Amino acid sequence: MAKIKRIDHIAILVDDLESAASFWCDGLGLALEHTQDVPAEQAQIAFLPVGGSEVELVKPTSSDSGLARFLEKRGPGMHHICLEVDDIEGMLASLKARSVMLINEKPRTGSDGRRYAFIHPKSANGVMVELYELPR
Amino acid sequence: MAKIKRIDHIAILVDDLESAASFWCDGLGLALEHTQDVPAEQAQIAFLPVGGSEVELVKPTSSDSGLARFLEKRGPGMHHICLEVDDIEGMLASLKARSVMLINEKPRTGSDGRRYAFIHPKSANGVMVELYELPR
Repeated sequence: MAKIKRIDHIAILVDDLESAASFWCDGLGLALEHTQDVPAEQAQIAFLPVGGSEVELVKPTSSDSGLARFLEKRGPGMHHICLEVDDIEGMLASLKARSVMLINEKPRTGSDGRRYAFIHPKSANGVMVELYELPR
Repeated sequence: MAKIKRIDHIAILVDDLESAASFWCDGLGLALEHTQDVPAEQAQIAFLPVGGSEVELVKPTSSDSGLARFLEKRGPGMHHICLEVDDIEGMLASLKARSVMLINEKPRTGSDGRRYAFIHPKSANGVMVELYELPR
């Protein structure tokens, strides 16, 4: 059976990366590993490693994306948590068989080759959950 | 300088522990380590280890606590993230000097001896952040 290995990251939606970094980096002392434009998500993302996981600060770069609408509706805050899984297809099949609502029934593939899929918050106590599997 | 070590846990507010466990445990396969009544928080908490961190499912046990009001107002979902710090007093002093809004200016001590404090979401991009230091 597919197995969750760890919390990979926590994604926080922000309206300004610099002021967000002033709390998470200058305040809490987390390192800013790098910042990346992610056109597929219409976002700019700052990666802050912490232990074996990461905090990701996500800033929408357009006004009409899902992220931008989320930010406009709910304000800055937690967007999703991401869990690493060893077999994403097996996990998605198993969740589907349990009638869990999936945003992506098949894994998508990111530019770095990792495969990922989102579970709908309605099936996860209001939490948007991302699953991802590292390339083998 | 005080240092953040890792993500200790992610706390998710739920209205029913059994149905929540049917997703997080039966669905995702996380182990339910134990469930604990925490009268100080007027809550019942289920602890689900994942990697070196935990998912905590938090169910209010009274209708007039802060947790219960949060649940009534916003529905189930992410409540806070908890980061382990090696020196909580040093971190709180440093954050206060930066005018970060703290819910607890001095650490509180849990029944297990660990010291913890919350940072106000207004200073943390809408995220409630708990800091905690293990007993030495």
